[in-house]
Formats: sequence, structure tokens, C-alpha cells
Amino acid sequence: MHVELRRGGLVESRHVSHVAVVDGEGHLIARAGDPDFVTFWRSAAKPFQAMPLVLDGAADHFGMTAVDLALCCASHSSEPGQVNLVRELLQKIGCSERDLTCGPHTPLSEAVAKDYQTRGVRLTAVYSNCSGKHAGMLALARHHDWPTEGYARLDHPVQRRCLAEVSRWTGAPEREIGVAVDGCGVACFALPLRSMATAYARLGKGEAGNAKHAATDASRSSPPAFRIVEAMLRHPELVAGDGRPCTAMMRAHPGRVITKVGAEGVYGALLMREGLGVAIKIEDGHGPASVLAMAAVLRELGLEPQPDSLLATPTRNSRGEVVGELRVNGGLVQ
Amino acid sequence: MHVELRRGGLVESRHVSHVAVVDGEGHLIARAGDPDFVTFWRSAAKPFQAMPLVLDGAADHFGMTAVDLALCCASHSSEPGQVNLVRELLQKIGCSERDLTCGPHTPLSEAVAKDYQTRGVRLTAVYSNCSGKHAGMLALARHHDWPTEGYARLDHPVQRRCLAEVSRWTGAPEREIGVAVDGCGVACFALPLRSMATAYARLGKGEAGNAKHAATDASRSSPPAFRIVEAMLRHPELVAGDGRPCTAMMRAHPGRVITKVGAEGVYGALLMREGLGVAIKIEDGHGPASVLAMAAVLRELGLEPQPDSLLATPTRNSRGEVVGELRVNGGLVQ
Repeated sequence: MHVELRRGGLVESRHVSHVAVVDGEGHLIARAGDPDFVTFWRSAAKPFQAMPLVLDGAADHFGMTAVDLALCCASHSSEPGQVNLVRELLQKIGCSERDLTCGPHTPLSEAVAKDYQTRGVRLTAVYSNCSGKHAGMLALARHHDWPTEGYARLDHPVQRRCLAEVSRWTGAPEREIGVAVDGCGVACFALPLRSMATAYARLGKGEAGNAKHAATDASRSSPPAFRIVEAMLRHPELVAGDGRPCTAMMRAHPGRVITKVGAEGVYGALLMREGLGVAIKIEDGHGPASVLAMAAVLRELGLEPQPDSLLATPTRNSRGEVVGELRVNGGLVQ
Repeated sequence: MHVELRRGGLVESRHVSHVAVVDGEGHLIARAGDPDFVTFWRSAAKPFQAMPLVLDGAADHFGMTAVDLALCCASHSSEPGQVNLVRELLQKIGCSERDLTCGPHTPLSEAVAKDYQTRGVRLTAVYSNCSGKHAGMLALARHHDWPTEGYARLDHPVQRRCLAEVSRWTGAPEREIGVAVDGCGVACFALPLRSMATAYARLGKGEAGNAKHAATDASRSSPPAFRIVEAMLRHPELVAGDGRPCTAMMRAHPGRVITKVGAEGVYGALLMREGLGVAIKIEDGHGPASVLAMAAVLRELGLEPQPDSLLATPTRNSRGEVVGELRVNGGLVQ
């Protein structure tokens, strides 16, 4: 499965994709390219980095709502409403913007970026797409009475706790998980795609390991971990933002799917009814290609229709003429 | 030969490169990946799109200097001085900015782009990195008494003439060359890398086809085509611009090498003393990777040192910390 940039009728550039589709028992049921390709999980790991909040009691301790938890799992668009919600979360846990160590960056939403530039809005740490995740990490530190200072350092108990949780859900031993510094300064984790997909499939059951009850029973038995799933399903508008792919894919099939993008062309998804986890990596890290690949995989797995804008992206030249398009070629192998 | 993005000590993303190194007789003497990979030549074709100016007499007719010809071959940085030189060229050929049909875009030089944004400079067609090429095409139309209107259309005599010239230098029959619309609206050409490299190698001899005299004799015999080579060698500061890779690579070895970047990770080069042509394509179209690949290939072919900044590019997170680097892994195969 490639994502191709066509100019006229000819392929100009090609993005190689690797895909693993895994069921709740960790069996590979479909793939493209190399399902054991190792790369960094980046922001697609956020649901699992938020998991200690519900498992360790921090979410209950601070009265965190589904809104708060969705933001902890988000790569949000820095929309004014989203930023204000993160500010409220920080207040709720007794912290302030000054405790955040994520660097500021241009908002991931072009519309928001343009608006802020026009209005001269000064971008601070709370505007980082990762500010919800960082607020969650501060909450975890507070709850455990760990120092909040240095919470982003790889050897801080917060980061060690996240690594342990990533290990539990992916089934990868800690010593086999590569750890490096993410774009926002906290730990990020290198894993085979198959392990990432396994974690998402297990998320649908609300339990790490090979628990036997199916996703459809999860809301009845309600394991604590399932609060992460419910938060994301209830608030697709917070997981990314208006007009962004994760939000669009989740809104297209409410309650049926969670999708979570990461930087450098990595993507995770959970298909609720099917109980399947998906992990995708565009080998060269191309973000727009990863979006088209995820929409194509979801469609092939039965979640159709997908938003038209995610099936192909026209490319234009400097005169505004359409001169080609980015489009998926090929599909999954059983 | 891959260009790898490393995070910590681990590879996060990988850019596959294809390279053809060809001598003046069209023999492949080294490669990486698939030397017959077909893609669009984009702006790396500019020296050959400028060629009709010297061969058909337009350059003499209008008194075009080495400065003018270098700009016709350039993907310039839209520097104020470069833009003014294109304006002077337009005046010289009896045209004006209004005749240019290239769309405006953000300058390729970040420093220039920032400066113009700060100063509120309105970007018009003459600021396009391709404005020199377009001015040259207008000159060709004027010289032949072809209509200047519609000079960018694929069926206009100017574009047909460029296709014929591309065919002559690459050795690829016209019917085997894919034609589509480039980023600036004119024709661009799909070819195997080996054919692109052949054209660059022949450029060093100043003659299309398999002429027998060596590159070192060219300045003595001075075939008309050699004026393109001399113009680019004399004005590396116009071929790209201050701080940009083509200019840096050419300045590092004055008179020894021509390098010409194209969009979507394509690159061409001519090694003067060695009489070798090089064509590179990063399969996924990644521009920064193509720069590192070209510097690595030039170094391997004996042009060392290369500028330090072109050997590896550090990547930083939103906090400004270095978290990884982009670097070439592997080399040419004989």
C-alpha cells in the first residue's frame, strides 16, 4: 500500500506505508508492508500515557471529567475553547501555565494559526497541542506526591510510569522499548507497529493483557481504563479539532472508532464494534499521507463512508490550478 | 542509500533515495537504488529549458549576459537584488511583470520570507523563484515572433521547443517523455534518472549527443551551449541564493560543480573536471533529504569537503532541544 503523489497521470513521488491490524487477542489479521516496522509512537501513544490517571486514582482525586481526559489524550488544535479548558484543568489540579514545560508552536489547525497571527495572539506553553497531556502528567505527579518540577525528564517517575503503562498495553517488555525525547519534551516510545496495534485493540476491551470479555460488554463491566475510551468517543472535537482528520474520522462514525495521529506519519486507531486495533507508519514520516492511509484502512475494514476530503488530496500549483493529487494505491493483505 | 531521521539513537523515518551517476558517453558509472526510477525533473531541468536561448540566438539578439542566463536557470531566493535583475531582464526583452504567468509564493529562503513578511512586501509574479525561467521563455517567444500570451501552455511553441531540447540532451525520444504542469504553470518532464544524469554529463561537454571532446576543452572550443554552464558557474549566488544549498555547494568548489535542485526531492549536478552527471530523487519527495543526499554523493565522487551544514541536519523539539538528526546512511554502488 503506497500513497502516491500524481502529477498529470504520472506518479511523481511515493510514500511507502506499513500497517498492522490486530484483534483483541493480539493476532495479526491484516497488514500492509512490514507490520513489525519499528518507529516512535509519538502522540498516538497519548491514550496510554493518560491511562495512569484513571488507574492510579488521579482522575478521581481531582474530579477529572471526560472533557479533561479527552484533552489529556489530544493533539488539540489550540482553539481558544480548547486552550481555556486546559487552563481550567490546570487550575483544578492546583497548577498553572508556568508549570508546563512544553514549548509553544504554530497551531496544528491552519485556520487557528492564521487567526492567531492576524490577531497577534502570543503563543505560550498552554497553546501547545500537547498541553492537555502535560497537564495530565502534572496531575499524576501531584497525586503521587512526586515533584512537579522536571516531570518531563526521562528519568522522572511520571515518565517511568508512562513507560510501564505502554509496556503493559503493548505487551512489549520495557527493556525492548526505545525511549527518546518527543517534540514537546517528554518521553516517546519506539515499538513495532504490531505492538502499537495490539494496545489499541486491548483498549477496546478496557483491559491490558488478553482479557476475554468483548468490547461490547465493556460499558457494562466498565473497567477503569474504559474511561479513556469513553472520553475520546464522547469528545472527538477535543481529540484534534474542527476540520482536522482525527475529529472528522471519529465524527463520521460516532461511537464506532477512535483515531489518534502522531507526528512523523504514525497513526493509531481502535474499531469499537470489530474490536480491532490499527497502527500505521508512513516510512518517510509524511503526515498527509498517513491521514489518507488511515481513512483507506478504516474504509477497507468496513467503516464507510469516509469523509471525501480524506480519500484524495488535490495538489495545486502557485497559480491555483489543480496539477495532481495525493491518493492511496493498494490495500491491506490478509 | 537512505536518508534517515534519527531520534535519540533510533531511526524514526527513512527516505529512500535513487541515484544515477553517468559519464559523458552516457554510461552508468555508479548508482544507488534504482537509476532508472522515473519522476519529474521539475526545476532541475532549467538549464535545458534555458538552452534554446543560446542555441536559437535569442540570447545574442537581446544581449543577454551571464547574469541573465544564470537567472533563467535559477530557482532563486526572491532576494531584492535577484528580483531587480529579473525586472531588468524583462525590460531588456521588451516585456513587463504583467507578462509573467507564474503565481507568487513564499520565498524559498526563510530569511527573505521573514524579511518580506515583516516589511509587508506584496509578493507578485516576479518574486516567484521561477521568474527568471519565465522571463527567458518570454524572450524566446519574442525572438521567434511567437505570441507571448499563453507561453506557459503545454501546446505553446515555447514549451514544445523546451521539450525538444530536453529530448536532445537526455537522449529520450519526445514520445517517451511524460509532460505535466509544473508548480509555476509551465511544462515539466517525466524521465528516468539515468536520462537526467546523461543530460548533465553532456552539458559539461557543451554538446548534446556523444561529442568526443572533453569538458576541459569546452572553454576553448566554446560551443554555444557552454554559455549556460559558464553562466551558472560564474553566478552561484543567482542559481539559488544566500544560504541555500545549491549556492553553498557551488561556492565550496568554485568552477568545479553545478548543482540544481528541483521540487519534490529531485536534484541534478554536473562535475566539471570529472565530466560526470548526477541525478537524484528522494522517492517520497523530501527536499531536505535530497540536499543531504547530493552533498554525500558529491563528497563520495571526490568533491570534498562539503559544507558542514549539508552533512547532517539536527532536529529540535518545540523547546529548542536537539532531539535527533537527518543524516545519510550508505553510499553509491559501483
